[in-house]
Amino acid sequence: MTGTASPALRTALAYYQAWTSHNLDKAMSYIADDIVCDAPAGRLEGAGAYRGFLGPFVQIVTGATMIAAFGDDQTALVMYDTQTVPVKSAPGAECVTVKDGKITYSRFVFDRAPFEAARNAAT
Amino acid sequence: MTGTASPALRTALAYYQAWTSHNLDKAMSYIADDIVCDAPAGRLEGAGAYRGFLGPFVQIVTGATMIAAFGDDQTALVMYDTQTVPVKSAPGAECVTVKDGKITYSRFVFDRAPFEAARNAAT
Repeated sequence: MTGTASPALRTALAYYQAWTSHNLDKAMSYIADDIVCDAPAGRLEGAGAYRGFLGPFVQIVTGATMIAAFGDDQTALVMYDTQTVPVKSAPGAECVTVKDGKITYSRFVFDRAPFEAARNAAT
Repeated sequence: MTGTASPALRTALAYYQAWTSHNLDKAMSYIADDIVCDAPAGRLEGAGAYRGFLGPFVQIVTGATMIAAFGDDQTALVMYDTQTVPVKSAPGAECVTVKDGKITYSRFVFDRAPFEAARNAAT
């Protein structure tokens, strides 16, 4: 695992630490106003849209474990497992571009299938 | 992006190059006989089970683009996008443990939802 010598990784890890601690405002402080995020459900543009995506997720997260985290000057790549209320193990991976301590672009991968299954089971 | 100085990343990239070239046998040459892979659908144990998972996927892949790749001595973390017959953009992330040039453990993340939707639409 690359140390915190990578500026991009430092930001990515601070962001991870914030949202896994349910601190949405702190997490959003690492998100650029004009962030673009390509997520499984499609593209999110702007901090408002991103907050609308992250906020509900943060509310259902009960735990998180970092699996691996690497980075260089501008890019960080992390994979983690999360425990959530509807899905016991929901791993995700994020590749982020960081400029001046803010995440300007994020490519986000996770499996929506177990969340859809939990939603269907609840209805 | 970390250079090929990382032994684990060298193996992960050679593996990626092989399966994205539809060379299943070459890809499997980088997989340890006793591989354990935690994939969205559950745990796969052993090269036979892994081949049964990778083989059908390789057949539907029509293109792939590496998004980011990092590694150290034993671990590599990659994220890529794939184009497949049923799903136009199907990104994935793999965190692999490498020993003696073979992948012994893989944590694999991708979104099953669009594949399930394509399967449902076809039936």
